[in-house]
Amino acid sequence: MSKKHVNVGLIGYQFMGKAHSNAYRQVGRFYPELPVEVRMHTICGRNQEGVKRAKEQFGWDHYETDWRKVVENPEIDVIDVSTPGNTHAEIAIAAAAAGKAVFCEKPIGNTLTEAHDMLKAVQQHTVPHAVFHNYRKAPAVGLAKQMIDAGELGTIYHWRATYLQDWIADPNFPLVWRLQKEVAGSGTHGDINAHIIDMARHLIGEFDEVCGLLHTFIKERPLAGAIDDKLGAKAGSQMGAVTVDDAAMFLARFKNGALGTFEASRFAVGRKNYHRWEINGSKGSVVFNLEKMNELEYYNEGAAEGRKGFAVIQATEGSHPWAGHFWPTGHIMGYEHTFINLLADAFTNLAEGRPISPNFVDGYENQRVLDAVERSHESRGWVKL
Amino acid sequence: MSKKHVNVGLIGYQFMGKAHSNAYRQVGRFYPELPVEVRMHTICGRNQEGVKRAKEQFGWDHYETDWRKVVENPEIDVIDVSTPGNTHAEIAIAAAAAGKAVFCEKPIGNTLTEAHDMLKAVQQHTVPHAVFHNYRKAPAVGLAKQMIDAGELGTIYHWRATYLQDWIADPNFPLVWRLQKEVAGSGTHGDINAHIIDMARHLIGEFDEVCGLLHTFIKERPLAGAIDDKLGAKAGSQMGAVTVDDAAMFLARFKNGALGTFEASRFAVGRKNYHRWEINGSKGSVVFNLEKMNELEYYNEGAAEGRKGFAVIQATEGSHPWAGHFWPTGHIMGYEHTFINLLADAFTNLAEGRPISPNFVDGYENQRVLDAVERSHESRGWVKL
Amino acid sequence: MSKKHVNVGLIGYQFMGKAHSNAYRQVGRFYPELPVEVRMHTICGRNQEGVKRAKEQFGWDHYETDWRKVVENPEIDVIDVSTPGNTHAEIAIAAAAAGKAVFCEKPIGNTLTEAHDMLKAVQQHTVPHAVFHNYRKAPAVGLAKQMIDAGELGTIYHWRATYLQDWIADPNFPLVWRLQKEVAGSGTHGDINAHIIDMARHLIGEFDEVCGLLHTFIKERPLAGAIDDKLGAKAGSQMGAVTVDDAAMFLARFKNGALGTFEASRFAVGRKNYHRWEINGSKGSVVFNLEKMNELEYYNEGAAEGRKGFAVIQATEGSHPWAGHFWPTGHIMGYEHTFINLLADAFTNLAEGRPISPNFVDGYENQRVLDAVERSHESRGWVKL
Amino acid sequence: MSKKHVNVGLIGYQFMGKAHSNAYRQVGRFYPELPVEVRMHTICGRNQEGVKRAKEQFGWDHYETDWRKVVENPEIDVIDVSTPGNTHAEIAIAAAAAGKAVFCEKPIGNTLTEAHDMLKAVQQHTVPHAVFHNYRKAPAVGLAKQMIDAGELGTIYHWRATYLQDWIADPNFPLVWRLQKEVAGSGTHGDINAHIIDMARHLIGEFDEVCGLLHTFIKERPLAGAIDDKLGAKAGSQMGAVTVDDAAMFLARFKNGALGTFEASRFAVGRKNYHRWEINGSKGSVVFNLEKMNELEYYNEGAAEGRKGFAVIQATEGSHPWAGHFWPTGHIMGYEHTFINLLADAFTNLAEGRPISPNFVDGYENQRVLDAVERSHESRGWVKL
Repeated sequence: MSKKHVNVGLIGYQFMGKAHSNAYRQVGRFYPELPVEVRMHTICGRNQEGVKRAKEQFGWDHYETDWRKVVENPEIDVIDVSTPGNTHAEIAIAAAAAGKAVFCEKPIGNTLTEAHDMLKAVQQHTVPHAVFHNYRKAPAVGLAKQMIDAGELGTIYHWRATYLQDWIADPNFPLVWRLQKEVAGSGTHGDINAHIIDMARHLIGEFDEVCGLLHTFIKERPLAGAIDDKLGAKAGSQMGAVTVDDAAMFLARFKNGALGTFEASRFAVGRKNYHRWEINGSKGSVVFNLEKMNELEYYNEGAAEGRKGFAVIQATEGSHPWAGHFWPTGHIMGYEHTFINLLADAFTNLAEGRPISPNFVDGYENQRVLDAVERSHESRGWVKL
Repeated sequence: MSKKHVNVGLIGYQFMGKAHSNAYRQVGRFYPELPVEVRMHTICGRNQEGVKRAKEQFGWDHYETDWRKVVENPEIDVIDVSTPGNTHAEIAIAAAAAGKAVFCEKPIGNTLTEAHDMLKAVQQHTVPHAVFHNYRKAPAVGLAKQMIDAGELGTIYHWRATYLQDWIADPNFPLVWRLQKEVAGSGTHGDINAHIIDMARHLIGEFDEVCGLLHTFIKERPLAGAIDDKLGAKAGSQMGAVTVDDAAMFLARFKNGALGTFEASRFAVGRKNYHRWEINGSKGSVVFNLEKMNELEYYNEGAAEGRKGFAVIQATEGSHPWAGHFWPTGHIMGYEHTFINLLADAFTNLAEGRPISPNFVDGYENQRVLDAVERSHESRGWVKL
Repeated sequence: MSKKHVNVGLIGYQFMGKAHSNAYRQVGRFYPELPVEVRMHTICGRNQEGVKRAKEQFGWDHYETDWRKVVENPEIDVIDVSTPGNTHAEIAIAAAAAGKAVFCEKPIGNTLTEAHDMLKAVQQHTVPHAVFHNYRKAPAVGLAKQMIDAGELGTIYHWRATYLQDWIADPNFPLVWRLQKEVAGSGTHGDINAHIIDMARHLIGEFDEVCGLLHTFIKERPLAGAIDDKLGAKAGSQMGAVTVDDAAMFLARFKNGALGTFEASRFAVGRKNYHRWEINGSKGSVVFNLEKMNELEYYNEGAAEGRKGFAVIQATEGSHPWAGHFWPTGHIMGYEHTFINLLADAFTNLAEGRPISPNFVDGYENQRVLDAVERSHESRGWVKL
Repeated sequence: MSKKHVNVGLIGYQFMGKAHSNAYRQVGRFYPELPVEVRMHTICGRNQEGVKRAKEQFGWDHYETDWRKVVENPEIDVIDVSTPGNTHAEIAIAAAAAGKAVFCEKPIGNTLTEAHDMLKAVQQHTVPHAVFHNYRKAPAVGLAKQMIDAGELGTIYHWRATYLQDWIADPNFPLVWRLQKEVAGSGTHGDINAHIIDMARHLIGEFDEVCGLLHTFIKERPLAGAIDDKLGAKAGSQMGAVTVDDAAMFLARFKNGALGTFEASRFAVGRKNYHRWEINGSKGSVVFNLEKMNELEYYNEGAAEGRKGFAVIQATEGSHPWAGHFWPTGHIMGYEHTFINLLADAFTNLAEGRPISPNFVDGYENQRVLDAVERSHESRGWVKL
């Protein structure tokens, strides 16, 4: 209709490219009231055959193999940076310079300096910016946020988070790009600790100080072929050095006085996507686990005597954040919907000229915490933010 | 590309219309190897404004207010019947007569006679047919099916199923069409017992005899306005008679000697979509619950002594049915994906000239069981199938 | 001190003998305020060596091999009947005639006639009587009872119970006495269906009508040696006929309008002691599972919008029934404590001249339901109570 | 009979006194094959009325108000030290000097020096010694230990433990002795972190280095009356300083290369006795939670492809450690049984002249870890053991 179009250019077409594409395709379907019409203009990747196939499969209008052409294309309004971490800064800064809104996968940069430069770029060029901390947009997480903001949990005492996976626990799993520091920046720390750090910032607030360690259990692995969009990979014969951490854990004090624990690992055999956190406040507690992402456990200290317990709320009701856009109560949502919700919020704010949340400030602050933990690992002591 | 197109005409645009539209839109995205290209040709509904809006929101090329025009449209290959139950037979039979493939929501007819006529029609006209028993297509259910077929559960002794909801437990919930026998055919029995009956046929086999009851707790309700696509409804002031059952339960003997229990209710306060079943065989047991549809609980009697217990399998691995088409292990799927998987299977079989499963035979056999339970309710005793 | 003694004579020293002995030994320790001092006077069994050993192990003052001597012993106040079912009636009636209080294991008789005679006997001789429906005395069950009585669950719509075990699922498990009708009276029906029937009477109320079936999966088994106190048994070589049911299930209508389902089986592979029930009322629901007997799940329809879910109450708080007599909150109780609580209530009522609950009326009414289900099985239809 | 007697003298009669008394009373009942007969000779406490009542309730033969008299009593073989921590060292050392076996509650001393002196004392006087790290003796924990020792979990990568309670989260909860450093020694750290440290030593092995913090959320509380045996207490009016920690958490490296996290808190609202740990090894993982202490979750990496998941083992089978002494499979045990099992092992070893496990070496090593964490808190960095 008369809706304003927003043309998107997506750089990257692997796992995140698939998830983002789906979200661009679906956002208008579940959010028909969106003030803009999202158009999937161009998808970009270095491998022509691969990106062409992705264009067809994911439903983009065009494809491109040179990201600079996408950034320079005057038709395009939003650049989505979904490439491996070592290319984020260059692309995002160029996109900002070209006046585009920049939506970037996390962590925004591979180093704190990169993240800082990226934040400066979007601020300098006053372009809208967003970071894909998509788990903020699960209804169960949105509900927890509402409850905390409304004071339903009282004073927060504890944050307790783990993000556990096991996909590289096998020593023969190959040396994919996520295990190479020069590409991925870091291992579990930047990949999955980053998620629970973002959750903590979102739900608890800013960090005061941290103390932690990073560890690599398996220091050498067979060289790999390409990873597919489901994190699968095949083992080769030559060996290479693993240059990132297999596990990362730290203690934290938040500025508001709460205490936190964080643990990320890819060596937690049996845990597939166990992004779990628990918050204990003076008036109640909540627990979230991404593997059961439609549920929020809630203990209400204010419930009647002898009737208290952790209640499993199915965050699928119309009254829960975002949930009303999908299916009836009890009909669950999946992983991909968090991206759809993130885009719905992002495009709404974009259209209305308000800052998107989360954005590059969140991306940068997240990396300040990641960086502080790395320095703590080196100094073997506490590091102030 | 050079892929054959299949043009779909969808009759109905409410809750099921939304779910089916999504599946048609997504099936090619997650199943790029599909031998046909699915085109969303026309959506049809009686309310012009509503169906026009649905066309836009769900992404159809055309809309129509007269289903006969869709059925007669030579461009259309598949008619999807997603209207309330009292119109299924007429539409489906006309579609079959017009040589269309017919995909129908369950239960296929409001009466056994209707179902029988529908089955006869698709058989007579030798058109492909499918019924939307979509829950068969959850990966966890597919896994259970694989295990049973491979003998991993041994001789089946017990089937134990409930489908529990609570959306009409409030006596002031209005008299929506699903509570009117002339439109809906039956209440919980045809709506949700039908699902667990289908699961039982799929996983255990054919019924030998049944004995049960139907019950209406609240016999009068306020007249309603229109139900929305999330089963919501607003209360009015005048009262009308509830002419369907609020709960339905029965015992069963299967032809293979297994025993079964079935219970469906919309008065199970706190249960939102608690479609749960448990199968006990001589070599193991499995449990499924739609509210946690990415999981299958499995007890393996053959595991080592002292190490046995119900294991929560996350049916999100590449090796699990359908799961490999979506996200990495541990990244869960939602309700809507069961429809996508059903269509992927259906279009594959359609293209290859093989029967679709489940189909109208399943729809008809399902209704034979529903009907037998109703007769058992009347005769207050066992009824043979 | 100056407390009145109550001398107990226990007939039977196997599994139930061990559980009852423990309860007599412990009741005064956890209930020091008990108005009587319980003395473990005599334990009785037919095998002299066995009963002598039991006397030592369990802490009785005397042993005896002829139950008549115990019943006639003027020092003894209470006769506890914990023998196999086929001897209950004779012993209990003799004990009543001798003016003793009679505490009897369930089901009180092997037939309804026996149960009726037993009830008549205790009423005629106006002796106190109790039946060991011990699961009523789990704190979580007591809590559910309190909630129902206080109207916290509103109008009760549904009762849904299963009692599932798997200890005879192996076809080579021997023909122990519990599988012989002439000793055990019935199989799963009298042994474990009896428990969930009692729970239903306790929590929901009296039955109106029932309809069900009994089934034997394995009709012949190796003859057994003696069963031990943990239900273990060794396989022999000769075969004998299984004369009791392996599984029993039925539907029910209660006098108050609630609907019920019941299923008992010893063929539910993986289920060890899965005595589970769920109650759905207009204001809330509760779920209990004996395998997690310190927990009660509770859904409160009256909780705040969007904050509702099944809460796992740990029924270990001082405010929960009986729990305050044991350990701090969160320190769980075990199976044996239900017997201790039952005796605490029984001896308190005994001392104060009030009827004990549950008692022979409950035992008899329970068997009326068991009997009605058996008749329903034969008549293949509903049977009124 | 001809069994050797062991006479026990118990110092302390509150919560631990009740739990230990129960265990002495019950151990011979469930372990009739025990090589000694345990006699409950004397219970001792400073308050004559209280200890006299405890003697009666718990079933001791004598009571005493001066612990020295118990220690000096030549009839007594074992001194059980269950008083508050500040008196352990004096009593235990005197008991060792008097040639008694010493069974001591944990932590054995309030300071590392005390613990060291106590260990030296029992070693010098070559008396048997035991420490009540009773949770080692839950069947589910024993099963985990067996599995690790048998290599079933492979190389251990991660230990992850929390011990969470909420009984002092209310700022008005009074200043009971457990909140006073001069009596209790420390707060959550010595009280409950000590438990999970012991578990880690038992299951994973010795610590290499630790880094952590201690924190007090509520620094002033109303002065208290006496705490009862269920940790209850009443608030008074005057205020006093809380001199112990409310929460304590640390990271650890074990000598075998495993990483560990530990968190103890009494401010985790909703958590009652949430002593939970998870172990991830190369071949599998296990999870234990004291609130569900009859269960062990087990993920077997070696299970068949697509059939893997965390299995809930009910550690109630005859084949599970200690479980065979109690009830049939599926009939759960409670908190108190861990003490019974500990005493069964202790008296067996005592009778056979073998060291008891766990003993004062474990008590001392545990305190070395507690102490290292305290020093880490002060130095704000890692501390080597």
